[in-house]
Amino acid sequence: MKFSRIPGINEEVRAEAAKRQKLLTKPTGSMGRMEELSIDIAGMTGIVAPELKKRAVFLMAADHGIAQEGVSPYPAEVTPQMVMNFLNHGAAINVLTKQAHSEVVIVDIGVNYDFPDLPGLVRRKVAKGTANMLHAPAMTPAQAEEAIQIGMDVLNEAADKGLQMAATGEMGIGNTTSAAAITAVLCGRKPVEVTGRGTGLDDAGLMRKVAVIEKILAEREPDAADPMDVLCKIGGLEIAGMAGVTIAAASRRIPLVMDGLISTAAAALADALVPGVRNYLIAGHRSPEIGHKVLLDKLGKYPLLQLDLRVGEGTGAALSFHIIDAANNILRDMATFESAGVSNR
Amino acid sequence: MKFSRIPGINEEVRAEAAKRQKLLTKPTGSMGRMEELSIDIAGMTGIVAPELKKRAVFLMAADHGIAQEGVSPYPAEVTPQMVMNFLNHGAAINVLTKQAHSEVVIVDIGVNYDFPDLPGLVRRKVAKGTANMLHAPAMTPAQAEEAIQIGMDVLNEAADKGLQMAATGEMGIGNTTSAAAITAVLCGRKPVEVTGRGTGLDDAGLMRKVAVIEKILAEREPDAADPMDVLCKIGGLEIAGMAGVTIAAASRRIPLVMDGLISTAAAALADALVPGVRNYLIAGHRSPEIGHKVLLDKLGKYPLLQLDLRVGEGTGAALSFHIIDAANNILRDMATFESAGVSNR
Repeated sequence: MKFSRIPGINEEVRAEAAKRQKLLTKPTGSMGRMEELSIDIAGMTGIVAPELKKRAVFLMAADHGIAQEGVSPYPAEVTPQMVMNFLNHGAAINVLTKQAHSEVVIVDIGVNYDFPDLPGLVRRKVAKGTANMLHAPAMTPAQAEEAIQIGMDVLNEAADKGLQMAATGEMGIGNTTSAAAITAVLCGRKPVEVTGRGTGLDDAGLMRKVAVIEKILAEREPDAADPMDVLCKIGGLEIAGMAGVTIAAASRRIPLVMDGLISTAAAALADALVPGVRNYLIAGHRSPEIGHKVLLDKLGKYPLLQLDLRVGEGTGAALSFHIIDAANNILRDMATFESAGVSNR
Repeated sequence: MKFSRIPGINEEVRAEAAKRQKLLTKPTGSMGRMEELSIDIAGMTGIVAPELKKRAVFLMAADHGIAQEGVSPYPAEVTPQMVMNFLNHGAAINVLTKQAHSEVVIVDIGVNYDFPDLPGLVRRKVAKGTANMLHAPAMTPAQAEEAIQIGMDVLNEAADKGLQMAATGEMGIGNTTSAAAITAVLCGRKPVEVTGRGTGLDDAGLMRKVAVIEKILAEREPDAADPMDVLCKIGGLEIAGMAGVTIAAASRRIPLVMDGLISTAAAALADALVPGVRNYLIAGHRSPEIGHKVLLDKLGKYPLLQLDLRVGEGTGAALSFHIIDAANNILRDMATFESAGVSNR
């Protein structure tokens, strides 16, 4: 699969933003992480303090063969049930995107259920879930490429209509197992160092999940130097789709806000597939999944929120939109020492 | 000074909120700190998931005699200049309250400058700043009581008009010195353990500031068991005012969002003056001032944001309003497992 080059960030506009931050009526550096954020966004978009009004969370849903192994306390039927909940505006992501004036684009990229044609549902099913990666590669290369292409397509369609900020989110019972396995491989860690409780495993469940991941890695032997191999063998259709969204966002210079472990694993794969993607990434939050911090450190990203959110769906990313808005608003709307007649140090 | 009793939290409504959290279509506990927050707010207000639309940051400004000792890199004239900036909507707090649909109530409670009658300025000056607490108590008991009363008055006036959520913020060159000294006394710590760089002292400046605080505590000998003694000897007029705002908010069952070190020092004094105040406190953020974490731990509060903000003015509190809204929105607007037909674990 060929990807177009990711454009470099606009260093000139970035420097302009950094310069303006120093003129605003506050002690230099006193807006902390929000100053860095506003400067990064200027470099990504080529605009000092853009409004980023047109925003969307791309929520990809898919099932996982590995769910058969008891790696989640919830049954696989919850994946399609939650898709219906998204469409009926009853889920956490619906509440948070409404508050943040954001769209949610709900994509069935691999749910094991035949949805009818429903308003708001983007039907791009590649397969009815992945294979059980304990016994076979999760996806064929053709499936993985199709899922990435779908992610790129939905992002590009939105970008053509003026999208200014994107986030990725997911729904898929069993997908923290896939994401933890990807994290172990990409970051060179043992499964026990990057595997968490997902939606709420107890201690015994967590030990079982770690053992399952160890066995998967031994059986599948994904090649850490080949992100497509990693994706096919131990990925998920929604993870491939989110990687596609992430790559396309970076290629269009659109800031891409990562959510939790799974969204960030997709972003790390995207960055491994196409150099330069990380320059367009913002870490919306840090989840209590222990692998998430490992991934964020690898990508060099500081999370805007640390509220122990572990819902997925893009919730942490959507919540961080308010912080991102604030960072841009501060840079755009504050007075300067000169304009306000305030003495500088 | 006599204070009325703080009402207990509504345990029944609190339990109702906790019960509803468990029914929502998300893994139990998966909204992390936001679940606790929504439950706490239900207990404070007696309403499950209130809207808290009517909100205000009470920004108290005052000067400090201690500023003569070179404890800040900014000159004292910045205090009145920044008050003008607030009135002209050019400061960080103006940008953030606008975004969060909040009012800002700007109170001159002790600025060393004669302001004319200006739209938006609440003129309640107690004195033109405190005395230099290195050489004399910062305030007389009468001044401290007057300042507390002003804080209670402005909060109560707003509460009579329907205020539903409050925050405290401040402006006063030199006031992190006062707040660090208060923190040392209330928390039984050495000044070096709770003193930070304020608006941006270098290493030499920080060492000088610590030495000044050590000398103040040796000279003034504030009694840790007597919060009014602490306030008079090493406080500030805006700190007394914010303590008054905080006490009145708690007495009216209005959630009070703390900002950084100075606002939190005022809240800790308020809680020491009137038992039960802490039940109505929310920690908006945690600043990089090392004393802030010590105070938050003492009050048993987890900060909603950790973005290295050190502007003051109430900025961290105003930014956290979005998180507070989200916590209430989630609890109010999400579907339940039953209503959405989603399988529970």
